[in-house]
Amino acid sequence: MQESPLNFGIDCLGECNIISPVRGGRFIGTGDRLLYDSDLKTIEGQLDAGLVPPTLEKAGPRDKIYFDPVNLRCGIVTCGGLCPGLNDVIRAIVLSLYHHYGVRVVMGFPFGFEGLTKEHGHTPRELTPEVVRDIHETGGTILGTSRGNQDVCEMVDTLERMNIGILFTIGGDGALHGAQAITEEIRKRGRKIAVIGIPKTIDNDISYVQKAFGFETAVSVAKTIICSAHTEATGARNGIGLVKLMGRESGFIAAYAVLADSNANFCLIPEVPFSLDTVLSLIKERLKKRGHAVIVVAEGVGQDLIRQTGERDASGNVRLGDIGLLLREKIHAYLSECRVEANIRYFDPSYTIRSVPTNAHDSAFCLLLGHCAVHAGMAGRTNMVVSSWRNEFVHIPIPLAVSKRQKIDPDGSLWSSVLAATGQPRDLLSQPLA
Amino acid sequence: MQESPLNFGIDCLGECNIISPVRGGRFIGTGDRLLYDSDLKTIEGQLDAGLVPPTLEKAGPRDKIYFDPVNLRCGIVTCGGLCPGLNDVIRAIVLSLYHHYGVRVVMGFPFGFEGLTKEHGHTPRELTPEVVRDIHETGGTILGTSRGNQDVCEMVDTLERMNIGILFTIGGDGALHGAQAITEEIRKRGRKIAVIGIPKTIDNDISYVQKAFGFETAVSVAKTIICSAHTEATGARNGIGLVKLMGRESGFIAAYAVLADSNANFCLIPEVPFSLDTVLSLIKERLKKRGHAVIVVAEGVGQDLIRQTGERDASGNVRLGDIGLLLREKIHAYLSECRVEANIRYFDPSYTIRSVPTNAHDSAFCLLLGHCAVHAGMAGRTNMVVSSWRNEFVHIPIPLAVSKRQKIDPDGSLWSSVLAATGQPRDLLSQPLA
Amino acid sequence: MQESPLNFGIDCLGECNIISPVRGGRFIGTGDRLLYDSDLKTIEGQLDAGLVPPTLEKAGPRDKIYFDPVNLRCGIVTCGGLCPGLNDVIRAIVLSLYHHYGVRVVMGFPFGFEGLTKEHGHTPRELTPEVVRDIHETGGTILGTSRGNQDVCEMVDTLERMNIGILFTIGGDGALHGAQAITEEIRKRGRKIAVIGIPKTIDNDISYVQKAFGFETAVSVAKTIICSAHTEATGARNGIGLVKLMGRESGFIAAYAVLADSNANFCLIPEVPFSLDTVLSLIKERLKKRGHAVIVVAEGVGQDLIRQTGERDASGNVRLGDIGLLLREKIHAYLSECRVEANIRYFDPSYTIRSVPTNAHDSAFCLLLGHCAVHAGMAGRTNMVVSSWRNEFVHIPIPLAVSKRQKIDPDGSLWSSVLAATGQPRDLLSQPLA
Amino acid sequence: MQESPLNFGIDCLGECNIISPVRGGRFIGTGDRLLYDSDLKTIEGQLDAGLVPPTLEKAGPRDKIYFDPVNLRCGIVTCGGLCPGLNDVIRAIVLSLYHHYGVRVVMGFPFGFEGLTKEHGHTPRELTPEVVRDIHETGGTILGTSRGNQDVCEMVDTLERMNIGILFTIGGDGALHGAQAITEEIRKRGRKIAVIGIPKTIDNDISYVQKAFGFETAVSVAKTIICSAHTEATGARNGIGLVKLMGRESGFIAAYAVLADSNANFCLIPEVPFSLDTVLSLIKERLKKRGHAVIVVAEGVGQDLIRQTGERDASGNVRLGDIGLLLREKIHAYLSECRVEANIRYFDPSYTIRSVPTNAHDSAFCLLLGHCAVHAGMAGRTNMVVSSWRNEFVHIPIPLAVSKRQKIDPDGSLWSSVLAATGQPRDLLSQPLA
Repeated sequence: MQESPLNFGIDCLGECNIISPVRGGRFIGTGDRLLYDSDLKTIEGQLDAGLVPPTLEKAGPRDKIYFDPVNLRCGIVTCGGLCPGLNDVIRAIVLSLYHHYGVRVVMGFPFGFEGLTKEHGHTPRELTPEVVRDIHETGGTILGTSRGNQDVCEMVDTLERMNIGILFTIGGDGALHGAQAITEEIRKRGRKIAVIGIPKTIDNDISYVQKAFGFETAVSVAKTIICSAHTEATGARNGIGLVKLMGRESGFIAAYAVLADSNANFCLIPEVPFSLDTVLSLIKERLKKRGHAVIVVAEGVGQDLIRQTGERDASGNVRLGDIGLLLREKIHAYLSECRVEANIRYFDPSYTIRSVPTNAHDSAFCLLLGHCAVHAGMAGRTNMVVSSWRNEFVHIPIPLAVSKRQKIDPDGSLWSSVLAATGQPRDLLSQPLA
Repeated sequence: MQESPLNFGIDCLGECNIISPVRGGRFIGTGDRLLYDSDLKTIEGQLDAGLVPPTLEKAGPRDKIYFDPVNLRCGIVTCGGLCPGLNDVIRAIVLSLYHHYGVRVVMGFPFGFEGLTKEHGHTPRELTPEVVRDIHETGGTILGTSRGNQDVCEMVDTLERMNIGILFTIGGDGALHGAQAITEEIRKRGRKIAVIGIPKTIDNDISYVQKAFGFETAVSVAKTIICSAHTEATGARNGIGLVKLMGRESGFIAAYAVLADSNANFCLIPEVPFSLDTVLSLIKERLKKRGHAVIVVAEGVGQDLIRQTGERDASGNVRLGDIGLLLREKIHAYLSECRVEANIRYFDPSYTIRSVPTNAHDSAFCLLLGHCAVHAGMAGRTNMVVSSWRNEFVHIPIPLAVSKRQKIDPDGSLWSSVLAATGQPRDLLSQPLA
Repeated sequence: MQESPLNFGIDCLGECNIISPVRGGRFIGTGDRLLYDSDLKTIEGQLDAGLVPPTLEKAGPRDKIYFDPVNLRCGIVTCGGLCPGLNDVIRAIVLSLYHHYGVRVVMGFPFGFEGLTKEHGHTPRELTPEVVRDIHETGGTILGTSRGNQDVCEMVDTLERMNIGILFTIGGDGALHGAQAITEEIRKRGRKIAVIGIPKTIDNDISYVQKAFGFETAVSVAKTIICSAHTEATGARNGIGLVKLMGRESGFIAAYAVLADSNANFCLIPEVPFSLDTVLSLIKERLKKRGHAVIVVAEGVGQDLIRQTGERDASGNVRLGDIGLLLREKIHAYLSECRVEANIRYFDPSYTIRSVPTNAHDSAFCLLLGHCAVHAGMAGRTNMVVSSWRNEFVHIPIPLAVSKRQKIDPDGSLWSSVLAATGQPRDLLSQPLA
Repeated sequence: MQESPLNFGIDCLGECNIISPVRGGRFIGTGDRLLYDSDLKTIEGQLDAGLVPPTLEKAGPRDKIYFDPVNLRCGIVTCGGLCPGLNDVIRAIVLSLYHHYGVRVVMGFPFGFEGLTKEHGHTPRELTPEVVRDIHETGGTILGTSRGNQDVCEMVDTLERMNIGILFTIGGDGALHGAQAITEEIRKRGRKIAVIGIPKTIDNDISYVQKAFGFETAVSVAKTIICSAHTEATGARNGIGLVKLMGRESGFIAAYAVLADSNANFCLIPEVPFSLDTVLSLIKERLKKRGHAVIVVAEGVGQDLIRQTGERDASGNVRLGDIGLLLREKIHAYLSECRVEANIRYFDPSYTIRSVPTNAHDSAFCLLLGHCAVHAGMAGRTNMVVSSWRNEFVHIPIPLAVSKRQKIDPDGSLWSSVLAATGQPRDLLSQPLA
């Protein structure tokens, strides 16, 4: 029987011999680990089978650290599409390095991994508490971002040349793959540079990351869009409000926004297959009964309906066909054929959601998360991300974080509540009875 | 020399013999008229030329009214696209009819002029203070709306059959033309039905209407979109945020939103012609100097660039080609040719702006405006709209209100301030020096 | 050695023999229990000691239920001070009873426990999906609320007379004590009435309830007040913004609001003792160095400084002296004595925070929580509350929920991050060095 | 018969001989004056009486200016209590001086008139476009403010020593008196320093200033407070929400907030006298009929009810007794006597309203207003304020602006609409019939 890969632990640069300058409060000890599962039966089963239950290393300050803050130079880079909270996390890292540890040099690399290359010629920017003081009040990232990876050797050259001890990489799946490659190159060279990831996923779909920063804020903006769609739908005869939300492989934003607004009548997410015919005929029925309909669709659904081009964007993500436009067309065609005169309004708020500043709770969450990233880096951890799991902050090896996607369980209670909120049938594959 | 058509006055159904039940406060007298012009030289010129200066009838309660509230039945209809404040105005009319005058029957006709026809079979809805109590907290219109006119005879038949004394028509240019046609049919039949328009124009482009309801709210949402565009533009290397706002023939929303946000670098409006080449080369320059650009464009600009189809929508408006998408394409092509790698983000928030509830000041404005509409109707006025002119409420004959468009003066101070805020050159026709 | 009282389980009215009408999705089984602790060492210690680790019954739908929905009549009551989310929870309960189970009669009792008495003569209100459709968009409670308990016998008489099967009690510590007393009287009479509590605590201080509904929303409003205080403080010479927030025995709102806003320089909470002299001299120092100071204080701190009256409010809470006003006075007196001219602005936003509608994420959370309350009641559970523990919904016996207060751990990471955000010293008891 | 003092015109430092660098757009000419009155009958009456109708000099750019931008140094000072828009106006002035005119030195004086004295030792701050770029997104004033005047000679010494050509004074009644005194001292010394006031009045009560900056924003925040008060009032049996708003001598904020929110049942403003007995008995009646009441009161009402201390604050305003607390006490005492058990919630949001950033429309308004202030100063105008009158920007001599208060006309349509919105009787002096 196999030990859980979670228990293989977090990579470390070496022993922690330096006394932490963090004063007061409880330190996290070596054996402080959080159970990955929290279900009694699961744990009992593991123990009965003679297995060590999978656990996660807890995040937080250690009494002994690896890096000497006096000489340490750190770097921060933000990668991929915008997401609420990027500036919050940058700020949290800078403030914690300065105020908890007394680190005095923090460099921000501009425009994602481009900033770590010579080729693009971006000048790194020194980040001080004064520079980051109010940046969390604005959306986006003061560092700028870019998609896609760069030459790994060149990036590690830059880290060496600038004498960076810890690189904080704020980014999604693609960026974490990049961070992992950087770690490997560093290891090959025998250098002592830590790479700490802060997982950015507006879709909330990174595995072992129960709640991603920015997600709550994204839901709050998505809610206002559904509300607008509902207003438009009810304002017209046979009005249809069609809202495309983010969600390439997981429908968390769509699901939570639907729960928060409660005006949606249909919610289509990648985890739940549907037949277009079924959905179309349900929409017609709904119009007949209620005179309007609101449809929320995650961008990743129905890719089988779209002629795939096989293209990928700079981050390596498959370019999705635009299901929103396709659905609009299909609904229009179907209803025309049925001689139902409908008024379809299409909403595609993508960038609007990505670019807002965090709401209050998300902002506090980003601060706590950034603090944990710093504690991890100072303790010599590397090739890992900080994550929130069951309301506690933990360390996850990057290879595990990028190994699969976190998804909504179609048989679980979240999706059941979505079904209750929309009133849509659980089964969208069978044809409804006439 | 010609007397101003403004001075020909407002159509009336007949003499006002009934003592108004409105108690206390000052009544508006027959001669209470507001000067249309407020410039000393203009007035002196008119007087010197022996002309009566053009004036507008002031809105407000009269001491004698035309309709007996006890037997009066009123109707309300909302037409055209959504605009913030529709529900506010409906509510203000109902409350004023009830509480100021004691009218007890107010019918709402569903889905615009469709609701006045037999054919569509919509059932009118009784509007009481209880029904309208909180509707102003929601965007849209509880009555629903539709575009386009209906058979005038049928509509007047409905008014007669339902014994409606005053019809309040909340709508834009198209609806006001419809209202005028209804008035004429009523007159032809010798009926005593008043038709009062409340001008709805999210573009703020109805003439003789200095400030339209919902406009301030629309500006406030537009501002947040420009802010998002700025965040996206600065977040990417050579980032371009391109925002298409409403404004078919007048650029008021674009202009005010640009003043409110101050992050836009270009503002294109229908009143100011531009050469595409000039704009493209200015954008390239801006990227070179600052690394990002935010462009705000009113939907009605550059129609010469688009192959015209000559189509019209149900309201009779010429269908505009989508200048936003065209600009995106042209900018992309031009920069590619110049080998400038840019990241263009396109924002088209249209329905999102139209469907929000009013902000506080707009809400108060709608209430005051609706009160004035009721005072006008009770005093037997017809074929007119209520309007805000120089901070006072006045009556405008519908034929004048639909006679031309209110536009931004490219030589005036508003546009000068927009130029100052964006930093764009006044002349967008000449090629900039290389 | 003692078994944890958590493992004694949840009271039940009897066996569940009726097949649940809830269709599809996974049901919760008898043995589905969540570990109370999630720390590996703790669990290992318990097992080594031969103890069953404490666990919590999971919330969610059961395949067999206790009540026959056809004949079931339910009641809802809201008690104590306002809190964001009351209407959300009412709505969630009504919708779940109707749509999940087909229950057709849900009564709302007005004004808290008063609504269950004859004496006050309030008429119960029938709650249908139509009635509750949009109530979550408004703060407060459509049922009204009151503080304090009422005669238990009379309340149970009412439940019997109205043939109520499940009473949902939304309220805080006081109301839960009341709910427990009602349960006991029901048991004494041998009746089969379930009592399900939904714990309301804007302070987030009910034990075994990791996250209370409305808390995130409260934090978001509190943040805006601190922001105002900061604006006022920086706008004046030696400006001091003093903000009193809720938090009788626990400082969660103050702590999270401080993390979210990051402009506060001092945060005083009941869990962390302080010497007034120390705080005063730190404020003086801060003014000297920076020219302004923002102080956030939870209402429950420093009760030793205030002459206690021993009074209690109708809910049985000790009436707190107003620490905010006292601090203002003490700061003023101390600085005057030190001849420091300061401008103190005092903010006491209490009701403003309590009365707002929920933000998006909180709204979704309330919906899920309300669904769980209904599932628990339908399964015949009683004398319990629904709770969120480590991101899962669980059942907690009322006696445990009211047994102690949830508090911030002054040695834990939350408080450490607050110290980092404010810059205040960990120790507020010793005199700072001159 | 007397010529209107308005026609005496605006003080000028001398002739404008320098060609304005402002390019394009229309310039304002010497005779461009706005009629103060816009009523036809009024103007006819004036002309019949042989009078020149009173007019106001229009604001805007002149083709010839007084100051040479190359050598000009300007100063800005913000005085009195906070008001939304201070930062917007500072920013508009700096940007216009730089971008319209090419002025290169703009100094900000810290903490109001204190910043112009030696005694307080504040160092002036150089204001560049970079410094002011985003300040309008934050409430308050980056310059800080203080109440009260300072020694005039010392202030003019400072202006001379720093070689300031134009001093922009953003402040209320007190600050404008100060600005006038500074102008007189400058004239006495024969210096050529212009003093331009930007009238700040959150109460909107400065005469000849129809709409003050920040007013709309203040109304929007006040509306949310009334909404909270309504939620609290309806949430409790006989709930009373009592809201004290700003309004020392004029009730504009209270009136507009009541129109915007529509949940208030009583609105008390300084312009409308009331008998406390009448109001108390109306409140009792309202509770009897509807079970709750919302009361909005401007801080300046009922000063006869309060023992006057005769104190004045540093700005010279009479210190008002707290009518809110008094009313709370009186209502409580009266209802107790009548044996009506009521729940009174008191809201005093003062600083919360003063410290928020402007909303979108207000922000655009501040920008336009600031531009006009700069145009006036560059044209050598002095001892004047910029003002919005009938939707146009004009110049008003300071002595006229401070000569009286702008007030709500109790017989006009604004107040009539407030009465309609609240349902309160017009006459609050007579006892209602039992």
